[in-house]
Formats: sequence, C-alpha cells, structure tokens
Amino acid sequence: MKYFWLAVLLITIPINAQQLNDEKQIGDIYKEALSNGKSYVWLNYLSNQIGARLSGSLQAEKAVGYTKSIMDSLGLDKVWLQAVKVPKWVRGIPEFAYLESGAGFTNNVPIRALGGSVATPMGGIKANVIEVQGIEELEALGKAKIEGKIVFFNKPMDPTIINTFEAYAKVANQRYSGAAEASKYGAVGVIVRSLNLRLDDFPHTGAMSYGNVPLEKRIPAAAISTNGAELLSASLKLNPNIKFFFRQNSKNLPNVDSYNVIGEIRGSTYPDEVIVVGANLDSWDLGDGSHDNGAGVVQSMEVLRLLNETGYKPKRTIRVVLFMNEENGLRGATSYASEVAKKGENHIFALESDSGGFSPRGFSFDTDQSNLEQVLGWKKLFEPYMVHLFEKGFSGADINPLKKDNIVLAGLRPDSQRYFDHHHSENDTFEHINKRELELGAAAMASLVYLFDTYGIITSNN
Amino acid sequence: MKYFWLAVLLITIPINAQQLNDEKQIGDIYKEALSNGKSYVWLNYLSNQIGARLSGSLQAEKAVGYTKSIMDSLGLDKVWLQAVKVPKWVRGIPEFAYLESGAGFTNNVPIRALGGSVATPMGGIKANVIEVQGIEELEALGKAKIEGKIVFFNKPMDPTIINTFEAYAKVANQRYSGAAEASKYGAVGVIVRSLNLRLDDFPHTGAMSYGNVPLEKRIPAAAISTNGAELLSASLKLNPNIKFFFRQNSKNLPNVDSYNVIGEIRGSTYPDEVIVVGANLDSWDLGDGSHDNGAGVVQSMEVLRLLNETGYKPKRTIRVVLFMNEENGLRGATSYASEVAKKGENHIFALESDSGGFSPRGFSFDTDQSNLEQVLGWKKLFEPYMVHLFEKGFSGADINPLKKDNIVLAGLRPDSQRYFDHHHSENDTFEHINKRELELGAAAMASLVYLFDTYGIITSNN
Repeated sequence: MKYFWLAVLLITIPINAQQLNDEKQIGDIYKEALSNGKSYVWLNYLSNQIGARLSGSLQAEKAVGYTKSIMDSLGLDKVWLQAVKVPKWVRGIPEFAYLESGAGFTNNVPIRALGGSVATPMGGIKANVIEVQGIEELEALGKAKIEGKIVFFNKPMDPTIINTFEAYAKVANQRYSGAAEASKYGAVGVIVRSLNLRLDDFPHTGAMSYGNVPLEKRIPAAAISTNGAELLSASLKLNPNIKFFFRQNSKNLPNVDSYNVIGEIRGSTYPDEVIVVGANLDSWDLGDGSHDNGAGVVQSMEVLRLLNETGYKPKRTIRVVLFMNEENGLRGATSYASEVAKKGENHIFALESDSGGFSPRGFSFDTDQSNLEQVLGWKKLFEPYMVHLFEKGFSGADINPLKKDNIVLAGLRPDSQRYFDHHHSENDTFEHINKRELELGAAAMASLVYLFDTYGIITSNN
Repeated sequence: MKYFWLAVLLITIPINAQQLNDEKQIGDIYKEALSNGKSYVWLNYLSNQIGARLSGSLQAEKAVGYTKSIMDSLGLDKVWLQAVKVPKWVRGIPEFAYLESGAGFTNNVPIRALGGSVATPMGGIKANVIEVQGIEELEALGKAKIEGKIVFFNKPMDPTIINTFEAYAKVANQRYSGAAEASKYGAVGVIVRSLNLRLDDFPHTGAMSYGNVPLEKRIPAAAISTNGAELLSASLKLNPNIKFFFRQNSKNLPNVDSYNVIGEIRGSTYPDEVIVVGANLDSWDLGDGSHDNGAGVVQSMEVLRLLNETGYKPKRTIRVVLFMNEENGLRGATSYASEVAKKGENHIFALESDSGGFSPRGFSFDTDQSNLEQVLGWKKLFEPYMVHLFEKGFSGADINPLKKDNIVLAGLRPDSQRYFDHHHSENDTFEHINKRELELGAAAMASLVYLFDTYGIITSNN
C-alpha cells in the first residue's frame, strides 16, 4: 500500500510543482507588465515623436533606429538589422473631392488615395458615377454602363458579424482589386467606401493592386469616408446624373533600402530551437499608426523585457522580429522567411500581434491537432487574466511565410470592436490606446512564449 | 431494438429542437441589436441633450421624462413612475485649490468636492498636509500629528489586479469614510486621491458619508486628480511644511420628490413570475454620465425592444426598472424592493448593468449552486458572441435589495480596463462610448433574459 502512495507522490508532486511554477512565472510577468511596463512609453515615442512610418519614408528609417536602440538597451544576446528592399509610394499633395448636383452646387467629401494608386490628371477627374455593391456586380452591368464613369464601390462591412476582422475580410477585395477590375470595363476612376463599421468623416486607406493591368490602363482609386459614402449614395438615388470630381497626385517610386529589426536571447539548453515574437514596424501614412501596428511593435519588444526582468532564463532561443513593409508588400516577412530557410534554422513557434492594442481576449493558433491540444491544456493558466479564447485560425501576415509542418503559429486576439474605427486612417492615434490594455496584451504574449519555451512543441526537444 | 431508437428519438429531438430555438432566438437578438439598435441614439440624447443627472437635479427630472417617453413608445403593456424621495446635494461654484511652497509660490491643482461634503468656509481652508496611505494609518499617527491639518489620502488603486472593480473596492473607503475618520483626530479637511488607475488631470467625485459625526464637526472633503496627487506627494517629500489651500461651497439641501421609471411586458403563461432588468437613471454631476450609467439605462430599455422586435412573446412578466438615486442614497432601489415585498410579487431573476458600456465579457451571478449550474449549461450559447465569463459574484447595488432564497441576481460584466478612466469624472462623456460595444452588451442581456424567461429558475414554474 505504501508503494502505491509513493507512486502517486512521484507522479503528482512534480506535476503540481511545475503547475505552481507556471502560475508563479505568469503572475510575475503580469505584475511586472502592469506596474513597470515600458510598452506605453515606447509607443508614445514611436507615435508622437516619429509618427506614421510608411515603408520607404524617413519616419520608417527613424523607427528602425529607435526600435534598434530600445533592443540594444534590453540586455539581449544579439541585436541586428536585416536589409530589405521595399516599395516606395507617396501620397503627394492633399486629395480633393466633391460631388456636383448641378452647376455651382457642390459638396466636398473627404477622400484619401488608396496605397499604390496612380494619380489623377493634374486637373482631376470629373465624371458620372455608377454605384455597385462589390466587384461581382461589374460583370452584370457590363462595359455599356461603366465606360467613362467613376465606379463607386459601396458594399458596407456587415455589422452583424461579431469578429470585425471577418466582416473586413468579406469586403476588402473592393479596395484591393476594385480598380483593376473596373478598369477592364472602361471605368475612369474608383471610389471605395472606407472599411469602417462606424459612420464618420475619416477615409481609410490601405493596399490596392493593379494586378496585370498595363501601366497606361491604370485608373486612380481613393477611399471615401463612410459619411461621404452615405451622402454620395443618397445623392445618386435623388439624381443618378450627379458628377463626382476628385484629384490626387500619389505615385509609385523605385524601391529603396530598409530593414527588419531583430534581437534575441540565446537559449540555454536548446539554442537551435527558435521562438519568434513579432509585428510589423511600418504603418500607413495617416494618423500615427498606434493601433496598426505600433502596439504590436512595443508589445513584442516588451515580451523579451518581461522575461528578462522576471529573471527567466529561456531554454530555447527567443527572438523578436520587427518586420518592415507588411502594409504594402510583405517584403520584410518574405525576406526573413527566406533567410531562415537558407540558414536551415529550426523555428518551432511564432507569435504575431497585429490586431490592435485593445484588451486581449485570447489567441488564434494555426497548427495541427496534437499541438492544439497541448495549448488547450494551458487555457486555465490564462483564465485569471481574462484571456479566454483559444481557437484555430489565421495567425498573422508576417509570420505566415514561416508555416511548415512542425511549427505552431499564433496570433494575439484583442477585442476587435473598435479596431476598424482607427485602422489605416487619421483616427489611428496614440490617444486611443489604453495603457493597461496594451500592457495586458504584452503580458499575455510573454506568458504564451514562456509556456512554449518551457514545454516546446510536440515534435521538439522537451 | 426499435423501441430503443424510438426512445432516443423522443428524448433527443425535443432537446435539439429547443437548442436550435435558443440559438435562433439569440442570433435574432444580436442581428437586431447590431443592425437596428436604438441604445446608441437614446444614449446620445440622454448624454448630450440632458447631460449629468444627479438626484434632485432638473436634469434628473428630464431623464425621468425622457426615458418614460421612450418606454411609452415601445408597445409595452404598462409604463409607470414610482415616487421616491431623494437627497439633494449641490456642488455650487467651482472648487479652487493650490499648494503653496512659500509666499507667492503656488501651484493650482484640480479638485472636485466629494458628493455629500460640506463647504469650506467662504475664504477657503489653508493648512499643513499629512499624507496617509489609507484610513488604517490615522490611528498610528494620532491626534498630535493630525490636528489642525488637512489629511491627504493617497493610497492608489493596485494596477496589478486584473479586474479593476476589485482594485477600486480595496481603496474606496478612503473616499467614503476618510473625512468621518480624519475628523475624529482633529483634521480640518480631507483631500483624496482620485480612484483612477491612469495619471491624468480629472478629479473623480463619488459618495462620502460623515457617519454619526455631528454637524458641527463635519470637515470638507474633495478628490484631487491623480496627477495632482502625484505632485502633492512629491512636493511633501521635498518640503513637509508646504501648505494646501482649497475652497468649495457644496451643500446638502432637503429631500426632493423623484421617480423610478418602470415598464413591463406581461407574461403570457406565468405573469406572476417577474424578471427585472435595470440600471440607475441618476449619475454624478460631472461629465454626462455616459458610462455611469447612461449605458445601463439604454441597454435595459433596449432589452425589451429587442425581445419585442424579434417577435418573442415572454411567458413571464419582463420589467425594466430605471432606479433613481443609486449614486448617493440608493433610495430608488430600496423603495422598489419595499414595494415588491408589500405587494408580495414573486421576482425570480434580476439583471443589472452598471459597469460601463464596454465590450461585454460575461455575467456575474449571485445565486445558489443549482441555479448556477443551470446557467453554466447556457454558456456555450454565448461563446459565438465572445461572451465567456460566467462566475459567482456581486450582481449590482440596485437589484441587491431584491435578494432572497429563490431568485437569481446577475450583473453584466463588460471589459473593466477603461472604466475608471471615466467613472464619476468630467471624462465620462458620450465620445468614449463605442456603439457596437454598447449594442453587444444589450444583446447579451436580452439573450440571458430570454433564457430565464424560457426555462425559469430551479424553483419556478417551467
């Protein structure tokens, strides 16, 4: 009988001890993040002293220098820059647009050129407007009804979808491919309803592509604010013959040099197993890019600081990667993945934060069933911190090129309700960041990184 | 063998059918709330056309009239006012305060009188300051070190507590009882650090009480902003002899007449079983009371509208109660509970929203184990809507007087991270409300009310 109890002791004590270790380490991470967190002051500098940092801009280069200097101060084992060629697109002088219901009867409306769009002619474009609810409607209308007109893509995000990123994904092709498609039917320009669930006056820019449309057939494309879209749509119902005028002088320039910013703590036991935590360092050129994605940048750096400050010595190599050019090219992410493949590095886990600095609700995991089950076993460690959501799903654009069989990819999932009020617009500014929410996100990320470092993945050493 | 399968069919089909009904009804509620919700436009009126509505104020009476007119428009079976006598406290002319490190060397700091505080003398109070970290320190200091001074209660909310309401509860007695306790040691006034986790310039008011301190011994009490508290504390460290000046002319007036606003849909099958959903209609007199608690007011009314609009016919009587005077007296809640007891009404479920209009995370339940288990069985119905937290806990001040053996009390639990940035201050304004978050709260509440109406509680008809 005593052997039975001995066996029970041998089995249960180490398990309980390890669970207590995990609880304590995670508790220490949260305490440090919420009492001495650095993410908010770093973001203040990135947002308010540097500002918006589109790939190829002076501000993007300043952001490279600033984040490298922060990493240099964190006592990491190695900090370096990885050279990346990035596209350079510039907005030029401010856009101008109005709708005209008759000679002299005009209403100005707020627009911003979509990222990658060509300019209008210097004098602007004035034309009739045809409103559509998405690309699918173009074919039915045909060249007869589209040629010579401005196509107005006005399909709104569906407010009944709870996860706003899903609502975004359902209509984002209007913005990305609207101009390429409309040009095939002879449209002279494209105006796209901003991808925002709220009615307000901010146009939301974002990437667009002309696909294989030849240079001379490319037509200018701009986002209109949701209030502007409502006005334009209502005006067209009253009078289908109103004209729309817009002028922009955005342009694409040759590629320029830029960098991914990388730092790592070398693993003590399995240094060749690499864990990546990262976010995109570039942003769009409106607002200051606080939620998209200064938040993810400072949270990723904070993960390494939190592990260091709580005295944790990683068994595996933990690396922070700030990827350049996620917004309009993904060059940083593809260069990083190429380098990993070339060096034959073994990445076992990658975590991305690119959904805003709001209260963390959980994580999405892009992995197989056995690794998902291990992760689900950690769920209860996060419950005291109000982190409840652990589900399969896309992890993030920058770490996605690392995808292979024996890796777990994960994405931080903050509350999504306010995200598109800010995304890619002048309303994405530091004042909309809540310090505690930002810190809670960093702490949740550091806790997950700690667990993967401690337990590895199913196919790794442990 | 075929009887076996028949039995399985008989058992499983109705269960699945009912579960599908529940999923459909809850889906309909969310769709209606997110596409045609009225809570946001109602709150816009309450916040921006009426504004702050402290008990006994003209605005509180306007809020009674406005919410009754909304209820009258909802097609309820009955709408009525319940008369309540409420206290009337007025702030008077703006407060003024500075700290003085020497003749002519002064720094103004933002203060606001605490609700219920007496005035200073017309010329203000100027005195030395003794800083304490909570009421507990007063006894150790004793009369010798306190007499003739202003006591500065400076214990901050603990940032490492995840649920900010718990951090609030731990230090709120400084505000509520600080003046009563300090006066026993001869203090001439009390300055209390605002109950806010953020460093900013907004003083946060709130209820205080003199307990049984006689009229002539009552000393004035005011909240200082967190930045002001940091400045005062740092200045005292440099020079313990600095003086603090403050002036306020707040006063308590005789009780006045006011009302609870009540409306109900009568139950079709069990009309004598009453379900209450409610919130406090009054607010503090700073800001416009959007998060505390215009949000709860409009969400409670929206619950009945959502049930009506989705074509749901309640089996039980569903009643919305807007309670007057939660902030500084709880007279509406105690009057309502007395009336319920006097009439012998059978209340089976009460749900309160008084934690802000932020993204709903779940509910707290104040009930016995068997009812809690029924509720936990409904948890999966809420998961698609990102509502994960179902736990035992306090439900709310206004429904608490209804507590008895056979009732379930519940409180909506929105995300708490931003709440105390706004609570009881000039920073509690409509611009800080997100329309979708407000609507998601109303939909979660309506879904829970639907389930209690459909299934009752363990001891009720069903």
